[in-house]
Parts: sequence; C-alpha cells; structure tokens
Amino acid sequence: MANRHDNDLVATSAEELERCARNAVAAFDGWSAMAPRDRARALVSAADAMRAHEDELVAIAIDETGLAEARLRGELTRTAVQLRLFADVVVDGDYLDVRIDPADPDFALGPRPDLRRMLVPLGPVLNFSGSNFPFAFSVAGGDTASALAAGCSVIVKAHPGHPELSRRTGELVAGALADAGAPAHTLQLIFGQDQGVAMLRDERIRAGSFTGSIRAGRLLADVAAARAKPIPFYGELGSVNPQFVTRAKLAHDLDTLCSGFVASVSSSAGQFCTKPGFLFVSDARVVAQAIREAAEGVPEHRMLNPRSGEGYRRRRDTVLASPGVEVITAGIVRVDGDAQTWVTPTIVSVDSATLESAGSRLLDESFGPLAIVVQYGDEGELADLAARLFPGNLTGGVHALADEATPELAALIDQLHRSSGRVLFNGWPTGVAVTPAMQHGGPWPATTADVATSVGTAAIGRFLRGVSYQNVPPHLLPLAVRDDNPWGVPQRVAPAGESTSWGERAS
Amino acid sequence: MANRHDNDLVATSAEELERCARNAVAAFDGWSAMAPRDRARALVSAADAMRAHEDELVAIAIDETGLAEARLRGELTRTAVQLRLFADVVVDGDYLDVRIDPADPDFALGPRPDLRRMLVPLGPVLNFSGSNFPFAFSVAGGDTASALAAGCSVIVKAHPGHPELSRRTGELVAGALADAGAPAHTLQLIFGQDQGVAMLRDERIRAGSFTGSIRAGRLLADVAAARAKPIPFYGELGSVNPQFVTRAKLAHDLDTLCSGFVASVSSSAGQFCTKPGFLFVSDARVVAQAIREAAEGVPEHRMLNPRSGEGYRRRRDTVLASPGVEVITAGIVRVDGDAQTWVTPTIVSVDSATLESAGSRLLDESFGPLAIVVQYGDEGELADLAARLFPGNLTGGVHALADEATPELAALIDQLHRSSGRVLFNGWPTGVAVTPAMQHGGPWPATTADVATSVGTAAIGRFLRGVSYQNVPPHLLPLAVRDDNPWGVPQRVAPAGESTSWGERAS
Repeated sequence: MANRHDNDLVATSAEELERCARNAVAAFDGWSAMAPRDRARALVSAADAMRAHEDELVAIAIDETGLAEARLRGELTRTAVQLRLFADVVVDGDYLDVRIDPADPDFALGPRPDLRRMLVPLGPVLNFSGSNFPFAFSVAGGDTASALAAGCSVIVKAHPGHPELSRRTGELVAGALADAGAPAHTLQLIFGQDQGVAMLRDERIRAGSFTGSIRAGRLLADVAAARAKPIPFYGELGSVNPQFVTRAKLAHDLDTLCSGFVASVSSSAGQFCTKPGFLFVSDARVVAQAIREAAEGVPEHRMLNPRSGEGYRRRRDTVLASPGVEVITAGIVRVDGDAQTWVTPTIVSVDSATLESAGSRLLDESFGPLAIVVQYGDEGELADLAARLFPGNLTGGVHALADEATPELAALIDQLHRSSGRVLFNGWPTGVAVTPAMQHGGPWPATTADVATSVGTAAIGRFLRGVSYQNVPPHLLPLAVRDDNPWGVPQRVAPAGESTSWGERAS
Repeated sequence: MANRHDNDLVATSAEELERCARNAVAAFDGWSAMAPRDRARALVSAADAMRAHEDELVAIAIDETGLAEARLRGELTRTAVQLRLFADVVVDGDYLDVRIDPADPDFALGPRPDLRRMLVPLGPVLNFSGSNFPFAFSVAGGDTASALAAGCSVIVKAHPGHPELSRRTGELVAGALADAGAPAHTLQLIFGQDQGVAMLRDERIRAGSFTGSIRAGRLLADVAAARAKPIPFYGELGSVNPQFVTRAKLAHDLDTLCSGFVASVSSSAGQFCTKPGFLFVSDARVVAQAIREAAEGVPEHRMLNPRSGEGYRRRRDTVLASPGVEVITAGIVRVDGDAQTWVTPTIVSVDSATLESAGSRLLDESFGPLAIVVQYGDEGELADLAARLFPGNLTGGVHALADEATPELAALIDQLHRSSGRVLFNGWPTGVAVTPAMQHGGPWPATTADVATSVGTAAIGRFLRGVSYQNVPPHLLPLAVRDDNPWGVPQRVAPAGESTSWGERAS
C-alpha cells in the first residue's frame, strides 16, 4: 500500500492553478484588510478546527507517515497553539514596527516631513510543505501560520508523503477561516511537483517558503531568483547540528550524555532537521560503550515513506564504507512487504582528521537515525574544527559543566554563533520551542536566507515589507500609523529636536 | 578631459582583491566585537573627518560630477549626519531586537528552555556605489554607514564616475575609523567593474548592496543568487515615481503645483532615483502653459558624465519620437568640448491611453530632467491606471486638497502603497529624509528586495541575522542578552505562563 495516494493521481490541473493564483490575489485584498482582532479570531478558529478533528487527523497521519501517535498528537498541539500564538502577535501589533517621525522644521538634515512607516503584507505566498512534520511544517504549520498572520493569502504545495492528510487539513482549516469571516480562498492547496514550480514562477506569487532537501530547496531558490520579478524565498534545507563535549563534562556525565544523544538521534527515526549528526568527544572508546547500552532499548521505527527509507539506506552504506569509520552500533535496517524501511540507530565513530579528509562522504546530512561520534585531541582545536567542517547549520551545541569558563569554550561558542542560528548549552537540538526568541535558520546550507527564521514569532517578518506615508492626512492613513491609534499598536515616535545626540546639526 | 580618471587605469589587481577579502574577514572579527559606544565613536569620527575636509571633498566632487556646490555641500552634510544617526542607533541597541524567553515549565507547548535571541552582523559586506550621489550613496553613504553600524566590515566598489573622490573619501574615512580604534581594513575600496563582480562571487562576502541601473543591478543580483552559497543582495534600481493630481487640487493650486513639479524634475539635472517621471492631470493644456512658464528660468545643468549625457539624449529621442507625444517644453540639450552634456528640462504630454499603448517606450525611466504629463479622463480611473502602469516604484504621490475624502482618492492611495515604498501627499519625492520612519525601497524594479530599505535607520536590518542562545549560562552569553544587561539595550522579555491569551494550553 505504499504510495497509495500517488502524487500524480491528484496533481492540480493547469486551469486549477490559474484559478488558484487568481483566487489568492482576490483573497489577499480582503484578508490583508481585516482588522487585527478579526484576523486573529480566524487563526484561532483554524486552531479549534484542528483540535476538534484531532483523532481523525492523527489517524490519517499515522497511516501516511509511520510516525508515532504520541509524537503526532504533540505535533498537532504545537501546530494549533502556534496558530494561537500568531493570533496574539497579530493583535499585539508590535510586528508592524510602526515608526512615526513627526514633522520637524529643525531636524539635523533640514526640515523633516511627517513620516509614518509600517510593515505591510507582501501578497500571496506559496509554501512548500515538508515531509517530516505533517502538521507543524505542512498545510497549517509555521510557514502558513506566519504568512496568514502577516496578512498574506497562502497557497500550500502539499507534500506527496501525506496527501490525504494535506487535503483534509486544508479543507478543515480553509473552512474554519471562512466560517470566521476570512475571504474565500485565503488558504488553498495545490498538488504536484511541476505544479509547485509553475506556481513559484507565477508573477502573482510574492514570496515562497520551503522545508526539505538541499537539492530541491536550491532548485526552487533558483527559480524564485530567476523570475522576471525576483521574490524572497525562504528555504530550510540541510543541517547536521554538531555537538561538542568538553573533557570535564564527559568525565562527569557520561551516561546521561550518551542516553540523551541516542534519544535525540533516534527520535522519530532521526527524521528531524535538528538531529544531532555529530558528537565530538575526547574519548570515543568510553562513549562507544555507553552509547551501545543506551541504544539497546530503542524500538524499531518506520521511516516516513519508501523513498525516505531508500535514501537513508544508501546514505548509511556510504558512511559505513568510508575508510576509518568504526561501528559503535550498526542498528537494524529492515524493509517490509510494503517497501517501508524500519530502523534503529546506526552510530559510528571516526577521529577528527579522518572526518575532515572524508569531506562530504561523512559530513553530509544523513536523513535518518545515523550519527557520527568524533574523537578530538584537544579542546583548543574545537573552534577551528567547527569553523572548517560546519560552515552552516540550524544549531550547534556545547556540553560542559555549568561553571566551566575556559577560553576554549568561549571561542567555541563564538564560532558556533557565526555558523548556526541557535547555540545550545547542555541540551539536544531536537524539539524546537515556538516562542518569540526562537531562531530556526542559519547560514547556507541550513537555510537559503539566514536573515530569517521559520519558527517562532519572528517568522512573520519574512512576509512583510516597509511602506512610509509622507504628510498624508489622517483620514487617508492606515489606522496603525494614525495618532489616534484605534488598534492600540505600539508606535515608536521619534523625538523632535535639532541634532543627533552627537551634537551635529545642519549647516 | 572626459573620463580622465578612467576606471581601467585604477582597477584593483587580483592579488589586491584577495588581500582585500582576507582583510575584510579579519577586520570583521574585531569590528563586530567592539562595544557599542566604541563602534559609535568610530562612526562619529568618520563623520568628523568628512566635515573637516569638506572644502577639499566638495571641490573634487564638483570637478568629477558636475553637480552644484550647494547640492554637494548639502549631500556631504547629510552623509556626515547619517553616520551620527547610525552611531545613535548602535548605542540605543533597539536594532538588536533582543528577545528573552525565560525558562517556563508550564509553557503552552510544554516546558520551554531559556531562550535569548539577538541580531548579529552577517560578515563582510560589498557595497556598489551609485553615480548620482557621490557622498550619500557612495563610499561613506547610507549602505556603508548602515553596514558598519551593524558591525560588518565593508568593501566599497567605487563608482568610475568619481574615482578620485572615492579614493580620497575612503582614505579619510578609513583613517578616521582606525584612529578611533577600529581594526585596520574595516572599510576598504576596490575599483573596476569585473573586479566588483569577482568580489561579489567571493565566498567571504556575506551580503551585497547596490544603487544604479536595472540592467547592472539585475546582473549583480543574479551573480549573488547563483553563488554556491547565495547571499542577500539589496539593489536599488529603477523608479519613475508617478504623481496624481486631483481635479480640485489642479483648480486650486495650478501654479504652485507646476513650479514644484518643474523644480523637482530639474533638480540636479533630474538625476535622482526619486525624480517624478509622470504627472497625471485632468487638464494637460492648462498645465502645459504653467509648466512652460516655470521652466523658463531653469539654468543649464551639466550631467554627471559623458555616458550619463549620452544615455539621456538617446532616451529623450525615443520619447520625443513616440507617437502621440506633444512637447510642452523641449529644453536644451548641448554637448560641450569635453563631451559633457548640458541640459534644461524636457517635458512632454500624452493621454493615458497613448501612454499605456506605448509601453516601455514611454514608461521606462529617463535618467535626466525629462518628465511626462499624462491627461486622464476621470479620477475613478487613477487607481487602476496606477496598478497597470506602475507595478514597482520607490515612491508614488497624490496631490489633493487637504480635506478631500473621495473613495477615488482612498483607492488611489491604497494602490500606491501596494506598488511603492513611500506614499506622498502634496509633496515631491526628491529629497529623502534620513529618519527612523523612512522607507526607500519598493517592489521590483524599484529594488531587488522590497522587504528592505536603503535609507533611514531601518536600513541596518539588511546586514543582520538572528541567533538564539538556549540555556547558555550568563558567563558565556553575549552582553546584550544577559539579565544584567551592561549595555542597557532594550530587551523584550516574554511573559511566563501556561497559555496563550486565547486560552489553549498543552494537552
């Protein structure tokens, strides 16, 4: 029954694509004009709809993705709460970044007009769903929630790995939005790979977002950049999330560390963009023993679909055949009668010189429960190793005693902040909090645009642009930038005055 | 004496380019690590250096660009004050967008770790200077000031139109930065077109910015997007800044309107990206008479360089030869013995149907003092005309009585905010205030990335990316995200609590 809902069976027709783009433009007009409270209520109503159909949706998801029920229920919760968080963001209005410079005849640069700037939604947005988060990075996931919150209409290119779940989620969420007063077609779905590319080329689409492989993400980023009118494209691609353990930490917390590592690598069969792919330790032999013990209890887990399984098996073979690689635990890799792959973690070790000379053969991401323990010599090497081997990641982690304060550790953390979007201390990168301070995005190839985040409330910034109004009378201004501020949004008002605080004024 | 400082004579060698990229990386380390007050002092010191050498710099600029002394002194003031404004931005620290989510065991999505997010500088930045603002969009202009303020080291690709001014400004500003404690090479210059492209391809460059033509800007944007590791590229390209005059306004303020229009079109020989290229009026005949009178007193102005003059003459010929175009004032176009072109404004009129059918022949930007008066029929057409004819501009303007409140006017302003970055009421777009609320950037082809602005304090956002720290102990955190907050930067702290304001919590 693999690939039962084959993508080709439901690919969107050319006529439907055209209608869909037209609808997205019309929906944008109405949706972007809705008052914040009304838009927020529609997002909450979408969350309610998912909650109300949780059992039904989770059952479809289990069937289509092989992910565990508890994980999927947690993910649905996250997705619903995320919609509510963005409802809060919409009502709060701080995301509009309203700036008001009152007219000032004595401004340092000469008379200043009345200027009022706010962020406005870009227009219709196209989101490409990911395979590994059938709720949180799919039809009603973070990209959709943040784009809708910004005031953009959204077209989702459904992932072929969970087409029925996509269809049903889309139906429920689009229905809930409409019931709450959103324009028809505020959220729409399309199916098919070529159809997604065609839509990304459509001039009416004003931004794209994506979660998936480096290959597909790069292809789409290139399409977006090559348009007659280029658009922003936010792709979250590949990440190996290296972890660095100090000598002292290893001596102190060996077992906790290794069991935490194995749990993070194995979780959902390692199909997370934040899976820790590398663990740097001062004693690989000691770690190997603890890892073997921790890995013993890990149950078999089905991979997302036959294709994910195939890719993982190929990648695993490459790693195992690489010179200098020693197996810590080979793990199970079993293909069932439906061509689905079942796995337990494969964990190997190498020394840092071997890793470096192997290049992409070992350094590339393995999408699945494979991780590499790396033996280092001296803590003083770690920052340089991190810089050379891991130029772009979503996350990077250090594991140290709480009061360790060596220059080597400080240098390592400094390096990790240059090459990753999130730096963790004594934690595992899987499990991404949806909060204001989350950053999910890092230097290439982690993302195509590391100025942005795809998780957390700051994700809304991806779908906005600035507009200034100069000397426009109140009755023609948007409400958010008016002095009477009926929505009560935060407004930053520039002080009047003849100089900067450094004392210079116009000559 | 034209092209005396020919670009090829001073093109940067391959060895110098390599050294320059290496230096930019080293300088970034030190510059990005400087405390805010120190970085701010260095920017102020750069401003002081320009001020101290104002006479010398303005004299070189007059010689190389043909722009008027008063204009150039004003531009130098703007450039110096701009550096001071960014010094304020650095010290204020709000641009860091610090968000702190304290650990919260009862967070709606399950236990939340301690998360602290701030924006950090991208790395070395490459700025391509513009020809038409030899101070404000050149070596020490807005792109450089905002990138330096962000903590990025900067390489400027000098514009061949003012090489000696570029060299001298670079020398003064780089010297002032170094004297104030900045690392050597925080600001560097390169010369040559191919050299600029080569540097944009260099992996060590982390962002690019540009002001210039659509053709060159698109080429560079494509280079940035096609890199093995793509980088953000902020290009400010072409804009025609349409102006729409209501019937009532025309009846009431004909002379003021027409003299303001002619002054804005003629200013600095029309060589502004914000020059108003189109004036929509209900009675072109009446306007023609008033424009002719206003244009009579306009003195000849030299264009920037022989190439600008040649381009303008060609473009003007195309417009004058276009069917249905009526000349209001043909203006002077004179080439002197140095191959420099001297001009007074050329203003023509057409009706809106003719304009639309002529397409790019009339709708493209004319870089120089040429503008087109467009006769419309009914105010109700204007919003649709604006949407069809002007999809992307830096600015758009309406001219109406202060208390006019027609649906047509509201629809027009709504349309202009979709297709421009700045909407003006009874003002002319030339003259761009450098303030927090300025937006200088609009939909393609006005800019390559309309999520950004290249003027105003928000321009700093182009050179930053987010980093989150998860559970990192205080002694290993950057100062800006620590609870003791020694720099006193604004920190947004998320409330603890078990639910969103919409009442849901984790199941």
